[in-house]
Amino acid sequence: MNDKVAVFEKMIGEALEKVFAGEQPLTLFDPARYILSIGGKRLRPLLTLMAADLFGKEADAVLNPAMAIEIFHNFSLLHDDLMDKADMRRGNPTVHKKWNANSAILSGDAMVVEAYQYIAKVPVKLLPEVLELFSTAAMQICKGQQYDMDFEMRMDVSESEYLEMIRLKTAVLIGCALKIGAVIAGAAPPDADYLYEYGINIGLAFQLKDDLLDVYGDPKTFGKKIGGDILCNKKTFLLIKALKHSDKTQRNELKHWLSVTDYDPETKIAFVKNIYDALNLRIITGNLIEKYYLASLDCLSAIHVPDDRKKDLIDLSENLMYREK
Amino acid sequence: MNDKVAVFEKMIGEALEKVFAGEQPLTLFDPARYILSIGGKRLRPLLTLMAADLFGKEADAVLNPAMAIEIFHNFSLLHDDLMDKADMRRGNPTVHKKWNANSAILSGDAMVVEAYQYIAKVPVKLLPEVLELFSTAAMQICKGQQYDMDFEMRMDVSESEYLEMIRLKTAVLIGCALKIGAVIAGAAPPDADYLYEYGINIGLAFQLKDDLLDVYGDPKTFGKKIGGDILCNKKTFLLIKALKHSDKTQRNELKHWLSVTDYDPETKIAFVKNIYDALNLRIITGNLIEKYYLASLDCLSAIHVPDDRKKDLIDLSENLMYREK
Repeated sequence: MNDKVAVFEKMIGEALEKVFAGEQPLTLFDPARYILSIGGKRLRPLLTLMAADLFGKEADAVLNPAMAIEIFHNFSLLHDDLMDKADMRRGNPTVHKKWNANSAILSGDAMVVEAYQYIAKVPVKLLPEVLELFSTAAMQICKGQQYDMDFEMRMDVSESEYLEMIRLKTAVLIGCALKIGAVIAGAAPPDADYLYEYGINIGLAFQLKDDLLDVYGDPKTFGKKIGGDILCNKKTFLLIKALKHSDKTQRNELKHWLSVTDYDPETKIAFVKNIYDALNLRIITGNLIEKYYLASLDCLSAIHVPDDRKKDLIDLSENLMYREK
Repeated sequence: MNDKVAVFEKMIGEALEKVFAGEQPLTLFDPARYILSIGGKRLRPLLTLMAADLFGKEADAVLNPAMAIEIFHNFSLLHDDLMDKADMRRGNPTVHKKWNANSAILSGDAMVVEAYQYIAKVPVKLLPEVLELFSTAAMQICKGQQYDMDFEMRMDVSESEYLEMIRLKTAVLIGCALKIGAVIAGAAPPDADYLYEYGINIGLAFQLKDDLLDVYGDPKTFGKKIGGDILCNKKTFLLIKALKHSDKTQRNELKHWLSVTDYDPETKIAFVKNIYDALNLRIITGNLIEKYYLASLDCLSAIHVPDDRKKDLIDLSENLMYREK
């Protein structure tokens, strides 16, 4: 972690503390401040600040849209946790558990509006473009979450459908965070587009890495329990590949574990992982992550700024790739 | 209903049919198109068009923000119905009944983003002001809904707290619908503000009329069952006044009916209505409605356009005041 990134993270942390500060009623805003306070990597706002920096713009100039993106991201986590009936988020109880479902719904709604209030602070000349980028990503995230939920009911999700879903649900907001930073910094449109594509590739690699770590992460460093996705039958890249490429015996065994309701968790994880191992899915998924990672570096290379300015972004994406949590 | 208003209503109906038309996935957009299709008075977009017309601007110029407001209004109904566990809306099953809670949450979220997409189509020069008006109203609506839910847990809600709640939950979007129309039509700022205040007063009168009709409406014309608010213990203006002004016997009787779970609906309605009658609440509520109605006419009078241009708005507010459904 270099000094500049540390300064950016401090700026983001301080700005986030001010969101909804002192606003009434607390019944509406406490849940929103809670989800914003329980951490996460602050990846998206950091990328907005780093994108502006890449094109020589001071971070202050993009702090408001960076907040908008982080608020929207946390809104989507809040509503997703409710829809997924998740009890925990980042080691803390989710909002609908700590408060209730109605609080989660309405506080989330207020966060969407607040995100747009931060977008509205962008300089007027850039407002139409930034607003369009933001709304497009916001709608894509809704679509991605819908596809994700729809996929839970299906056993025939294809690899390309899955990749499109995670593009919408995860990658576009990362691309959007970067592109908004670039646009406000006055980047040439092709450079802003390359940075967006860099974000899409990083975002896809990032989500696939999440899928992989759930199964093959080191329990000591991963931070959450290994096998969570397996236990809740989440249609991850690995499960989709396994359903597609398994032989008849493996497929029947997978279907058994997907339908059984009374089981020992460790046994289920071990059996499913065994199939993933047999199908070489750790390597296959790792190769795809590497492909997107390399594609992201190609996008960075194409941007017309001196290479030394790109170092922070390269370091960050390397950290994301080789992370163990 | 005059010809011009009929033309406006036709424009609004046709524009609403195009919202989310052909968009995928249908699991996300069908619920949104459903709630938009099951009617309602289309009061808010109509007011935006009439506001533009008041200042001599063609209705086309404000159709996009009018759509934004109607989409946001229907989003708020969709999420409110879920939070209130309401089974029916305008004689049709609510979205979470026809689909499920997750559909109601996510389709509602997509509607908020879509509303902003329509706001974004406003001419760039006016975009900052219109965006600010819209977001301010949107946040106030969230606050109003939160106060409404918070009030359900309280027996000591004051009249002024109640009026502030309905101002936020209902009146500000009516004011916003009118003011956005005025701003885009190029109205002088004081005139746009008078029109906003006209909307606030009409909105307050409108909601109080709703409270009144639930108890004293004519079952033949009201359209929904009389006494619905009484049966679900809704903290209406009448109940709040009754809790405040009842003597000890009446208050104990009210509290009995608010806490009893096994009862004959008609008996509960009759007993509560009896207390409202004894406390003269039909007249008291009617007088307050009249007060806001007259205040709304004062606001209209203050606007610097010839009186004959105001006739459509005067007719409309009169219809709202003397409606029986």
